[in-house]
Amino acid sequence: MGGDHAPEIVVEGASEAKIRYPDIEFIFFGNKKILEPLINGKNNLSGSEIVHTDEAINSNDKPSYVIRRGANTSMALAIKSVRDKSNAMVSAGNTGALMGFSKLFLKTISGINRPAIVACFPTKQGEVCMLDLGANIECDKNNLIQFALMGQAFAKIVIGVKNPKVSLLNVGEEEIKGFSYIQNASETLKNLSKIINYCGYIEGDRITEGLVDVIVTDGFTGNIALKTAEGTAGFFTNSLKEALKKSIFSKLGYFLAKNSLEGFRAHMDPRKYNGAVFLGLNGIVVKSHGGTDSFGFANAIGVAYDMAKYNFIEDLKKKLSITTKHLDL
Amino acid sequence: MGGDHAPEIVVEGASEAKIRYPDIEFIFFGNKKILEPLINGKNNLSGSEIVHTDEAINSNDKPSYVIRRGANTSMALAIKSVRDKSNAMVSAGNTGALMGFSKLFLKTISGINRPAIVACFPTKQGEVCMLDLGANIECDKNNLIQFALMGQAFAKIVIGVKNPKVSLLNVGEEEIKGFSYIQNASETLKNLSKIINYCGYIEGDRITEGLVDVIVTDGFTGNIALKTAEGTAGFFTNSLKEALKKSIFSKLGYFLAKNSLEGFRAHMDPRKYNGAVFLGLNGIVVKSHGGTDSFGFANAIGVAYDMAKYNFIEDLKKKLSITTKHLDL
Repeated sequence: MGGDHAPEIVVEGASEAKIRYPDIEFIFFGNKKILEPLINGKNNLSGSEIVHTDEAINSNDKPSYVIRRGANTSMALAIKSVRDKSNAMVSAGNTGALMGFSKLFLKTISGINRPAIVACFPTKQGEVCMLDLGANIECDKNNLIQFALMGQAFAKIVIGVKNPKVSLLNVGEEEIKGFSYIQNASETLKNLSKIINYCGYIEGDRITEGLVDVIVTDGFTGNIALKTAEGTAGFFTNSLKEALKKSIFSKLGYFLAKNSLEGFRAHMDPRKYNGAVFLGLNGIVVKSHGGTDSFGFANAIGVAYDMAKYNFIEDLKKKLSITTKHLDL
Repeated sequence: MGGDHAPEIVVEGASEAKIRYPDIEFIFFGNKKILEPLINGKNNLSGSEIVHTDEAINSNDKPSYVIRRGANTSMALAIKSVRDKSNAMVSAGNTGALMGFSKLFLKTISGINRPAIVACFPTKQGEVCMLDLGANIECDKNNLIQFALMGQAFAKIVIGVKNPKVSLLNVGEEEIKGFSYIQNASETLKNLSKIINYCGYIEGDRITEGLVDVIVTDGFTGNIALKTAEGTAGFFTNSLKEALKKSIFSKLGYFLAKNSLEGFRAHMDPRKYNGAVFLGLNGIVVKSHGGTDSFGFANAIGVAYDMAKYNFIEDLKKKLSITTKHLDL
């Protein structure tokens, strides 16, 4: 029931995802009266399980309030289902509430102190994943090391790189740059070269270069960097659109260039990268952008599908158990 | 002598600036044998004062080393000249060394604990200035408040807004977001409404909206945000160029749209925004991008010119004395 266009685009997105991944089975959580006709309107979804509840979380509900009172909301029931029987959960709802319930019902994996939010972005060469995007304002050395391990396991499955390159976001490439907890994390990651393909620091202007597969930072910086990139991208796209509408010549020019611009547009399409994941929990929870459409929602489902199918959590646990043998995290 | 194309573009840039601001007088610091023919090759510069020195700072010299040994370098002499007789100094050289010498020779203004780096960027509506862009990795509440006051005085003169709107960069707009030192700074700035036009928090995706004139943050976050924006902008521009070169149709399309794109390109031109300023010192020091051309360097000179002409430092000192009456900073 969460997001700007729910539940319509959620059901639409599920139907699109089912075409791509026919072995998915969906359980829908929410108001049965609204959901049932939507679901039965889709051939490939009709008859899917619906868990009815009248309660839903609003986008502006305070997480702390919701977590005390919202145990019967569609969001809470869906996350409990991940704990009890589902392989993964996708929601376009309130991020803070989703994180709160996820921590409460799923708990963090042993060896992970705090979950982190990860997502993928387009670069000059393929994609990059970045974490933490805002779950933890303040981080320490161990958080960064755990984020690096989680990011690596995530990139392997979701981007599909064999031995993902991992970097720490910093204000320079020299060892002496940035906060000491970043320097200490860097030192430790260098000593984990058998477990992780650590490539040193990366600066903000190289995030989009595609030189590494995983960029690790604290949740404050990650959130600012992500949003700054989104804002700049939006600013460019809009300014360009305005410019191309200016004259009859530019309109004609745009028409002629349209095919060539299509690839560019497709590569940048934010819907393609929809699906931020809460990593570090005993369960897969994917947060879709609240304003996305069915194509975007289907992509978020795709992320959840890949993570479940390719045993993300088992893979991460294995990595963590090897690491804790090497280190005292 | 600093920067990738010095001293040629420095002299060229000075000549271009002199056309715009005929009342500027230049003193050039560096190797007289190289500088003299360049300067005398420009009609409007010929006969300018040259302070000769054989020593210059390299772009990869360590600031700590340079500050101990580099008292006779062109950079050090130019900054001493700001202390002793010049109104402002512009350099395209080593940023760390420039900051080190500036602190050493100019000292911070009374009421300012630490200098900050500020620069302007294009937005949907005009420009915005942001600070700190990297002088201080770790900041406290008082630093942020002082940055806000400095940024306001800077925007008034350099962007030319009467009552600049000032915001703190944060991961959300609600009061409870972010680090407590940001929340405390926000609280204090609200109480300074007679002195500063404080508009609350701003998120990364709204930096380019042009809703405020000054964005205040710590040097770590500011550096990451600035570079992320630069990287994203570069990524878009390059991807677009590539796309437009793809076919004969897109090339023709680009040709037709060229005029309309010109305004867009001009608004985004990084050379227009060249000139980062070290604020909070007893003197005006402007850092030009090392890789800029003469047009960019002339713009950095323009920033220094405006700050000197419109008494930036006196203006800031006045503001600080009123503020300290209100607060114990």
